[in-house]
Amino acid sequence: VNVLRIHHVAFASGPADEPLGGHLDLLGLTCVHVEQGAGFVERMAPAGEGYLQLLEASGGRDVVSRFVERRGAALHHVAFEVDDIDGAIGELLAAGVRMIDAAPRPGGMGARIAFAHPSSFGGLLVELLEEGPSPTSSSS
Amino acid sequence: VNVLRIHHVAFASGPADEPLGGHLDLLGLTCVHVEQGAGFVERMAPAGEGYLQLLEASGGRDVVSRFVERRGAALHHVAFEVDDIDGAIGELLAAGVRMIDAAPRPGGMGARIAFAHPSSFGGLLVELLEEGPSPTSSSS
Repeated sequence: VNVLRIHHVAFASGPADEPLGGHLDLLGLTCVHVEQGAGFVERMAPAGEGYLQLLEASGGRDVVSRFVERRGAALHHVAFEVDDIDGAIGELLAAGVRMIDAAPRPGGMGARIAFAHPSSFGGLLVELLEEGPSPTSSSS
Repeated sequence: VNVLRIHHVAFASGPADEPLGGHLDLLGLTCVHVEQGAGFVERMAPAGEGYLQLLEASGGRDVVSRFVERRGAALHHVAFEVDDIDGAIGELLAAGVRMIDAAPRPGGMGARIAFAHPSSFGGLLVELLEEGPSPTSSSS
């Protein structure tokens, strides 16, 4: 697996929480992208080459809401960008890693993503992410 | 506050845990730096311009061990690199942020660091970090 960078670190909070206590701007960070997921809204705030991802759970029975119910607002996962997500998943499966997603699925911002089960990484929820074609590269 | 990048994201585990289930290498990551902290060992694995930091708690009464006792192995904090940590702390204090460290203290790899209290950032433990002089820049 060839990890290019930490693409984002995700912090999950509940529907009644103000993400980061409303203090994201104090860190000089700004959300540049908002997207609706399955049971959550994700907001992306760039910091250097990576992002802080704010997951706002809907409060339903989806996986992010259950995490927040159990843990409170907390860091949720780390997404590593890879150059070849299909190859990376194959390598992890061959090594005996339990994948939540055994094949890539669509993620935010046009990326292809796959989660590994935290039991395979000592409790860390690892996301693999391969970026989609950028708007500029498709026009060149 | 001028955040330059996510310097590291820290994952804490206990003395009996194998960090990341012993599978760090499966992600193509390698620890390049090991340092003893107050009640923990920290290991730094580069990923792009940032690091995954593995905190191995001693199992004593220090803050990292108590976190792991309460939460299990889990993501612990995010460190944002800033260009001026004294100025950044001043800005946060002026905005009413509760700082764990009201003045910078020495961190790993020669950095100066300061933690904000998670209550000020909706539950996220934020570390500010200003890098120390690099070995190369001091010789130039």
